[in-house]
Amino acid sequence: MLNPGPASASSHTLRALATPVSYHNDPWFLERFRNAEREIAAILGTTQDVVLMQGECMLGLEAAARSLVHPGIKCLNLVSGIYGRGMGEWLRSFGAEVIEIEVPFNAAIDPADVESAFAANTIELVTVVHSETPCGTLNPVEEIGPIAKAHGALTMVDAASTLGGIPLLPDEWKLDVCVGASQKCLGAPAGISLMTVSEDAWSAMRRNPLAPRASILSLLDWKDMWLEEGRFPLTPSITDMLGVEAAAGEVLEIGVDEYFDRPRRAAAACRAGVRAMGLETFPRDDSIASPLLTAIALPGGTDDLELCEHIRSHYGVVLGDSEGVGGIVRIGHMGLTARSFHVVAGLSALGRGLLDLGVSIDLGTGLAAAALAVNDAPVAIG
Amino acid sequence: MLNPGPASASSHTLRALATPVSYHNDPWFLERFRNAEREIAAILGTTQDVVLMQGECMLGLEAAARSLVHPGIKCLNLVSGIYGRGMGEWLRSFGAEVIEIEVPFNAAIDPADVESAFAANTIELVTVVHSETPCGTLNPVEEIGPIAKAHGALTMVDAASTLGGIPLLPDEWKLDVCVGASQKCLGAPAGISLMTVSEDAWSAMRRNPLAPRASILSLLDWKDMWLEEGRFPLTPSITDMLGVEAAAGEVLEIGVDEYFDRPRRAAAACRAGVRAMGLETFPRDDSIASPLLTAIALPGGTDDLELCEHIRSHYGVVLGDSEGVGGIVRIGHMGLTARSFHVVAGLSALGRGLLDLGVSIDLGTGLAAAALAVNDAPVAIG
Amino acid sequence: MLNPGPASASSHTLRALATPVSYHNDPWFLERFRNAEREIAAILGTTQDVVLMQGECMLGLEAAARSLVHPGIKCLNLVSGIYGRGMGEWLRSFGAEVIEIEVPFNAAIDPADVESAFAANTIELVTVVHSETPCGTLNPVEEIGPIAKAHGALTMVDAASTLGGIPLLPDEWKLDVCVGASQKCLGAPAGISLMTVSEDAWSAMRRNPLAPRASILSLLDWKDMWLEEGRFPLTPSITDMLGVEAAAGEVLEIGVDEYFDRPRRAAAACRAGVRAMGLETFPRDDSIASPLLTAIALPGGTDDLELCEHIRSHYGVVLGDSEGVGGIVRIGHMGLTARSFHVVAGLSALGRGLLDLGVSIDLGTGLAAAALAVNDAPVAIG
Amino acid sequence: MLNPGPASASSHTLRALATPVSYHNDPWFLERFRNAEREIAAILGTTQDVVLMQGECMLGLEAAARSLVHPGIKCLNLVSGIYGRGMGEWLRSFGAEVIEIEVPFNAAIDPADVESAFAANTIELVTVVHSETPCGTLNPVEEIGPIAKAHGALTMVDAASTLGGIPLLPDEWKLDVCVGASQKCLGAPAGISLMTVSEDAWSAMRRNPLAPRASILSLLDWKDMWLEEGRFPLTPSITDMLGVEAAAGEVLEIGVDEYFDRPRRAAAACRAGVRAMGLETFPRDDSIASPLLTAIALPGGTDDLELCEHIRSHYGVVLGDSEGVGGIVRIGHMGLTARSFHVVAGLSALGRGLLDLGVSIDLGTGLAAAALAVNDAPVAIG
Repeated sequence: MLNPGPASASSHTLRALATPVSYHNDPWFLERFRNAEREIAAILGTTQDVVLMQGECMLGLEAAARSLVHPGIKCLNLVSGIYGRGMGEWLRSFGAEVIEIEVPFNAAIDPADVESAFAANTIELVTVVHSETPCGTLNPVEEIGPIAKAHGALTMVDAASTLGGIPLLPDEWKLDVCVGASQKCLGAPAGISLMTVSEDAWSAMRRNPLAPRASILSLLDWKDMWLEEGRFPLTPSITDMLGVEAAAGEVLEIGVDEYFDRPRRAAAACRAGVRAMGLETFPRDDSIASPLLTAIALPGGTDDLELCEHIRSHYGVVLGDSEGVGGIVRIGHMGLTARSFHVVAGLSALGRGLLDLGVSIDLGTGLAAAALAVNDAPVAIG
Repeated sequence: MLNPGPASASSHTLRALATPVSYHNDPWFLERFRNAEREIAAILGTTQDVVLMQGECMLGLEAAARSLVHPGIKCLNLVSGIYGRGMGEWLRSFGAEVIEIEVPFNAAIDPADVESAFAANTIELVTVVHSETPCGTLNPVEEIGPIAKAHGALTMVDAASTLGGIPLLPDEWKLDVCVGASQKCLGAPAGISLMTVSEDAWSAMRRNPLAPRASILSLLDWKDMWLEEGRFPLTPSITDMLGVEAAAGEVLEIGVDEYFDRPRRAAAACRAGVRAMGLETFPRDDSIASPLLTAIALPGGTDDLELCEHIRSHYGVVLGDSEGVGGIVRIGHMGLTARSFHVVAGLSALGRGLLDLGVSIDLGTGLAAAALAVNDAPVAIG
Repeated sequence: MLNPGPASASSHTLRALATPVSYHNDPWFLERFRNAEREIAAILGTTQDVVLMQGECMLGLEAAARSLVHPGIKCLNLVSGIYGRGMGEWLRSFGAEVIEIEVPFNAAIDPADVESAFAANTIELVTVVHSETPCGTLNPVEEIGPIAKAHGALTMVDAASTLGGIPLLPDEWKLDVCVGASQKCLGAPAGISLMTVSEDAWSAMRRNPLAPRASILSLLDWKDMWLEEGRFPLTPSITDMLGVEAAAGEVLEIGVDEYFDRPRRAAAACRAGVRAMGLETFPRDDSIASPLLTAIALPGGTDDLELCEHIRSHYGVVLGDSEGVGGIVRIGHMGLTARSFHVVAGLSALGRGLLDLGVSIDLGTGLAAAALAVNDAPVAIG
Repeated sequence: MLNPGPASASSHTLRALATPVSYHNDPWFLERFRNAEREIAAILGTTQDVVLMQGECMLGLEAAARSLVHPGIKCLNLVSGIYGRGMGEWLRSFGAEVIEIEVPFNAAIDPADVESAFAANTIELVTVVHSETPCGTLNPVEEIGPIAKAHGALTMVDAASTLGGIPLLPDEWKLDVCVGASQKCLGAPAGISLMTVSEDAWSAMRRNPLAPRASILSLLDWKDMWLEEGRFPLTPSITDMLGVEAAAGEVLEIGVDEYFDRPRRAAAACRAGVRAMGLETFPRDDSIASPLLTAIALPGGTDDLELCEHIRSHYGVVLGDSEGVGGIVRIGHMGLTARSFHVVAGLSALGRGLLDLGVSIDLGTGLAAAALAVNDAPVAIG
């Protein structure tokens, strides 16, 4: 599996998943749950509330959006890919007045455009996708958050594919709600939304009469029942939670800096190989590319689905298709695949697959370039 | 753990949970998912659609209620405990016109009253809780479903604590939506709602303009994307799903009849012990008592929370408190605890706890009665 | 499983067993191996070498005996049960001159008799079984070791069923070789012999020209290659070793004193129940009974194998038969079964089984006596 | 891990290892044990007795040798590497009269030489190593067995690194004792010797007064107690055995032909890459090379230990050193590493390591050649 998430679980996480299931109200599990919250807070360097909602990150995103949005609220939605577009559809369906800045899918939002939007409009909520993973791009949320905060607006970040894999600093970057996924960079099972919520965001939710209550989508129920009173509003999946605890603990044990640097090193090696092979990466330039994956522009006419299925069925390697964007194939650099010669294996699969389909590339030059650019720090295995 | 759910996982299920996490769109996992659906259908003897929604069963219940209910719909809500009351609050908050039949918490709904309600009112939807677990009682959904269907109404059943543990036959009993939980009778991790949906229910949802769409709560998205087109609307928790598949497979291997008979035998032994000890069961009579647990009326004044916490902290045994109803303590008979001398261990804990708190009971007579009533079929262990 | 070993693994140990198998010469595994050695040393309060030989404890016992024994060596073998008898057969087959002190199987060796044997004979090696588990008895190795050392003899202890479950102090008690088992009190998988070897014992082995070398039975190979040079003489079972590390680590986390006290408390409750039921324990008196199990004398004529098989096949409870001694049934108090109401469940099974076979006992009085004598310290579960 | 064994466990095997530990005399486990025996027999296409001795394969080899050898027995020991040499030392230390045929370590035994040895000597036992893994070579046991049998001699095969990975047919090839390892081709935990024993071998053991009895090394105890009477002579490691059962079961599910063909295909791709890189394989020619690994001759002066440690510490890849032979580095093709682009990853590590140490090779040409030669059959992943 060399696709950009869900990532494989580490040995350490697998151990946790094999733990016999205990009672969710047992003090032992309550402490495991709180420890997972503390770990996520440490990874994000935040003092905001961490909320581990029960449900894949689509639940966290929907819960956050429904809790913050009410008919008539003025939203600025930043679109650089399909997830940003989908967020706009949600906002409109919840009754928001939506202004959008849209850039080509191989580009990233320009903070200057955000400033201009604030100059021209009253905006209460900014919504932005940290990484548009189908395109391999990254938006500068570290600059967008402070702009929004300076104008008194909240910022809600879809960090599904970045939280726990690259720096994301809600406090320093003034982000009010961030939503991540257990199954992406952390390599834990899907099933938990990893969220941060600022005091400003809680206040806005409390002012919103349509914020879900007595619902699986209620962030306020988690705030009032679990964070304030220590009672779960519903039964958490013990197995999924132990997976999150183990995976986050492993990140902290490795060290956040080292853990976040691995994808950067792997991405550099992969991109060297891609270019030496005669291919191009999809993002406009490397400064806006996510280190967690390399999105490669397919030479004219190659179908990404056909290519990925050919590679999977013939060689047992799972690469990422373009999720409907078209013309892109993706190699992930998350967790275990951010290290060693996984990028060479990924490029072997890609190169061999392209040659099988009749696309001419320079396989040897590409593989050698990647193999020579691999730059793992010397560390213990295990 | 001798509480009435969540139940402990069996060896077989634990094996499944330790399976390394694979890619959710891999054909191998798609087949695992479909196999889990087939297994649940086999346990329920149904040809209806089985929907395994991603989320603890509160999600399934909310999804079903929001999909069926629209402002002005006429609902008959049957109340014999706190879960029935909560359902009524939901229905009203979604804008339904709600008629309720409420019986004392130690009783069950009388089908004749349901008939009368239909005679006096136009009713579009009947909502009923199969087992009010805090009270240890069972409602006769096998009689209620046909009455509703005869009057053209849909029936939605909260089967959270019964699906997979005792007979529940959506087809034969004319039930339109049933919602169960992975972590109860099946002993799998929490995190999956196990649902059946009839053709009539799908039609009603499609006619409801407020039925959730593009939402974690959307049953119709699961119908259109997964059941019709084989694409997941969101990322399932592979670990949780493999747990469901393994747990349901084990039920079928043991045999549904034998598996459903175990709680009946254990409950009979437990109740013999309770009465010999000088205590009374809470349900008005055994014919309306759920075999999956024994709810015991605490002698005057004994606080259930204090008692359960005393037993847990001194003896490491988790019994069920009354979940706020008061005056009840509960011993579960699900999965592993439905066999062997688990009921004697549970009664030892209860009896010793009561004596520690100064309540006089006849411990020896009670334990002997239960031990003599244990009636396991001779079977292989493992 | 309420038999006296092999014991069930704890959640914590099961997690370790599910760890993906790594390379045995990897630094990570070497550190795991050394950590397991340190943990065993800490449990035994010893500064002697700990040797974790690859093979069930019969291998450790054979390796120790073959390493120490040569034709003509004068051995004192202490016999209070079948394992002591077997040791004598081994010693004779290896060419030793064997003196034996044998006591009835419901008694223990009297240290005064050991003194007398030394007074009358030149003895180089004393061999003794710490607990004759089939009989439920304990020999006073804490007194025998110092006597032997005072006379310049070595002491070799078969601690298969006691190491890690009750106090065993090689340094303080002057024991030269102790051999324990991973699968008994520790609840790890079978497959590792847990051994301590004193300097005196190493010297004796080095002087013995018949001590195994280049053999799976060679203690000296482990000493020279692994303890001195850090190279494994053969490939260890990574899974088994991680199980030992996890299990021993859990004992230390609980605390050795508390962990060793649990069987004592459980045994007291069990014996109270046995006697109240009208039965007798097998050991002559409680002062020589092992706390790790209760051996119960079966009323005249009851066949232990028939009884145990009846209980297993009808009630799914595994009690220990007499391993050929006859007339004894055994309930274990190791690991998880040393706590809570496991003794009541065990006595329920025993009592019900005896009644089924027509043996009259007072079931209620017995179960109540045991339940009232349960005396767990208040501790967290998990 | 790309070294030639121990191999990584598959998902399927890991599931088995996480199974809670049960009682080894339980009928459920007895059936698991017998099923593992049947599976091994099926993989070997044999009707001989399969003996699963408790202990890493060095135990099985020692047990077999001690059971067959007595002072004065005339043995022909075939030496093509260090394991063959070690076998000779054992035979002599057990008192055998040993004739040896030794060939260079990059060659294999010539059956004609075996014929000649029989013509010139009376020989009772032939000992041979199937694969000298440090050298990557294979001896033609399929021709040696029939020669020995024709002359009335027994053949004992060290198949530690081949059993379960490539064809080994005790019946067809007239082999009397074969000894394999659980942790090599099968990818199960170390700890079980997988053995076949012919009727002729049993007879010879019974005639040998020095064959171990009442010993961990006693094959005859396993024959008499377990195979004849169904009682274990000692406590097996349940975890290790379930690992063997699961791993062998997976081989049968994949199909023996396909499973044995995978290393052949991977080896072909690897060797194409090695040669394109400008390196040479160590075995004299491919017809005597084991498909389970590729042994590569290091260019003059490169130290294998330094190279392997450099690659491990910098890139996290474990290649096999020469185990003391010198001048060889090895890439394994067992289990999971026999598929997909693992050989390219292995060659990347090797090539990069050599370049780092200043050895000139043609990296790109080599990697491309290997990637183009990968030839996996299209199969489902999982």
